[in-house]
Amino acid sequence: MTIETLLIIGGGLIGSSIARAAKAYGQAKTVYVMDNSPEACTAIERLGFADGVSEGQADFYAAQADLVILCVPPGRMGDVAEKVIPNMKSGAILSDVGSIKGAVIEAVKPHLRKDICFVAGHPIAGTEHSGPEAGFAEIFKDRWCVLTPTEEGLEQTQILKTFWEGLGSDVAIMTPERHDIVLATTSHVPHLIAYTLVGTAVDMETVTQNEVVKFSAGGFRDFTRIAASDPIMWRDVFLSNREATLEVVDRFIEDLTALKRAIRWEDGETLLEHFAKTRDIRRHIVDAGQDSSTPNFGRDD
Amino acid sequence: MTIETLLIIGGGLIGSSIARAAKAYGQAKTVYVMDNSPEACTAIERLGFADGVSEGQADFYAAQADLVILCVPPGRMGDVAEKVIPNMKSGAILSDVGSIKGAVIEAVKPHLRKDICFVAGHPIAGTEHSGPEAGFAEIFKDRWCVLTPTEEGLEQTQILKTFWEGLGSDVAIMTPERHDIVLATTSHVPHLIAYTLVGTAVDMETVTQNEVVKFSAGGFRDFTRIAASDPIMWRDVFLSNREATLEVVDRFIEDLTALKRAIRWEDGETLLEHFAKTRDIRRHIVDAGQDSSTPNFGRDD
Ligand SMILES: NC(=O)c1ccc[n+]([C@@H]2O[C@H](COP(=O)([O-])OP(=O)(O)OC[C@H]3O[C@@H](n4cnc5c(N)ncnc54)[C@H](OP(=O)(O)O)[C@@H]3O)[C@@H](O)[C@H]2O)c1
Ligand SMILES: NC(=O)c1ccc[n+]([C@@H]2O[C@H](COP(=O)([O-])OP(=O)(O)OC[C@H]3O[C@@H](n4cnc5c(N)ncnc54)[C@H](OP(=O)(O)O)[C@@H]3O)[C@@H](O)[C@H]2O)c1
Repeated sequence: MTIETLLIIGGGLIGSSIARAAKAYGQAKTVYVMDNSPEACTAIERLGFADGVSEGQADFYAAQADLVILCVPPGRMGDVAEKVIPNMKSGAILSDVGSIKGAVIEAVKPHLRKDICFVAGHPIAGTEHSGPEAGFAEIFKDRWCVLTPTEEGLEQTQILKTFWEGLGSDVAIMTPERHDIVLATTSHVPHLIAYTLVGTAVDMETVTQNEVVKFSAGGFRDFTRIAASDPIMWRDVFLSNREATLEVVDRFIEDLTALKRAIRWEDGETLLEHFAKTRDIRRHIVDAGQDSSTPNFGRDD
Repeated sequence: MTIETLLIIGGGLIGSSIARAAKAYGQAKTVYVMDNSPEACTAIERLGFADGVSEGQADFYAAQADLVILCVPPGRMGDVAEKVIPNMKSGAILSDVGSIKGAVIEAVKPHLRKDICFVAGHPIAGTEHSGPEAGFAEIFKDRWCVLTPTEEGLEQTQILKTFWEGLGSDVAIMTPERHDIVLATTSHVPHLIAYTLVGTAVDMETVTQNEVVKFSAGGFRDFTRIAASDPIMWRDVFLSNREATLEVVDRFIEDLTALKRAIRWEDGETLLEHFAKTRDIRRHIVDAGQDSSTPNFGRDD
């Protein structure tokens, strides 16, 4: 089975990027988008990457789609699944792109039908911007997409894998639990820490906001990029991946406390040992094609 | 007085960038570089931006220089000052680029002569790379350079200000103490946190290093860039700016603990309120020309 007709629900950054990429790389003939935001729908129509856009009901689109991908904030997946599943055609595949998997699967499960296969997914790609204007077809290229099917050996998992490979991604398959602890480490806790640090800087009464802005090129500005990501999405992520997030945060606080102690006791050895270790992993990330080696990410200014 | 002859001690990332920029933008006629690393000296000769390079003694260069800028790691400033000051010509200016100011001033002060004026400085510009190959003339353009003279109204401060403006920087003048607390917030603590988080991820026994590398595009890779900065320099920075670093780290841990509690108690309101606040500062930083607004910093991959 190839995907003839694709329905995207939630045409924001990720949804609109999938729609664009599916068309650009010939992974679907017809692409429909449903979004509950009138502004988003107007923008999607103007941008012209979809064969049909709906602001309200999407029953007609759902009935035709071979694949429906939910691209709404994690906390809305259950509601959206409840509405769309009854209208889907028998044998169609349902997937999503939520940044957490355990909680999304739990939310979707009660609404599933026997003749609809749900294979949850998460493309590890994105930017700090939101909405359909921010999307672009190349966003998934050379990035990983994680699929977390709840059954092994499903034909539908293979179909979805081929679809994502067609968008330029590498596909990794793992359990939802594993996804959630790995992503807590590589994504959720980094975001929480960036949000925290930017908040701390803004609240410091010894330093003015003007000073923070002026001297941000010393490192701080990198954190503000991450902390500019969509607040609603990240609230949902932290609330739905509580256990794993808290586990990693606790480890982080332990480690930070140890480095704090080393600074307090002027233990340069411990600091140096720690800092030398972390250089290595950057090299691996650059070698694996997951980041640019040009200084300052090759910023254009 | 204009700078005819400039001596850079330590021709690494920052030193070689000043040398290049001083030539490129006509801020010095003759530029000499002294560096105690044979590899660095060979590279500087090959790169050809200096009028003379010395690996060992620099007495001859020091005797001619109108301005000597110390560009060695913060912990070496005292030793280097002790060696170079006796050879400097009367009336010359001494400066530095160390990322901390209080401790550098303390280290240099005992070696000062009455006829040499020391005006400490810190260009808020850099990359995660080190050494003379990593330098480039445009690095200071539209970045701030902080000068922390210990006396007000010095003519030498004006000369140095003009010099840095000639390299494309905006110049801010403040006390060493203020510099150290502001930079603790915008640079030192962000680096400490990045080093810590990357270390935590590498040490998590529930997640493999391979997984961390593969899925780093979710946010983690930004931290690894900062944590790839020179370990020796950063050890020196934390040890020499202890009080301010610890003050900001403690505030950060308090704030992180509050957000942790909000996650544990599923208090989405508090999370959302906090996350919304931090978006604003990013906009200010972009508007102030201190970062790129293109997604993902405009990474080239
Ligand atoms: N951003 C990233 O970097 C990234 C990366 C990987 C995965 N993800 C995941 O991708 C999903 C979408 O994120 P995004 O960044 O693309 O967000 P986005 O740009 O804000 O787009 C989400 C779109 O979905 C719409 N929507 C919300 N509730 C809806 C509903 N009930 N029915 C129909 N449409 C609805 C939104 O409209 P309103 O504006 O009216 O709410 C918005 O247009 C999230 O689950 C997120 O975890 C994001
Ligand atoms: N990197 C940044 O982003 C940045 C930004 C603003 C300010 N700064 C400040 O700039 C200074 C230099 O940093 P950098 O990044 O340019 O470092 P770098 O690239 O490592 O260069 C430092 C150079 O100084 C040499 N050196 C060390 N001790 C010396 C000595 N006693 N005499 C002569 N040369 C000596 C080093 O040689 P060896 O390799 O043999 O030690 C190296 O070639 C530091 O004080 C730092 O705080 C850095």
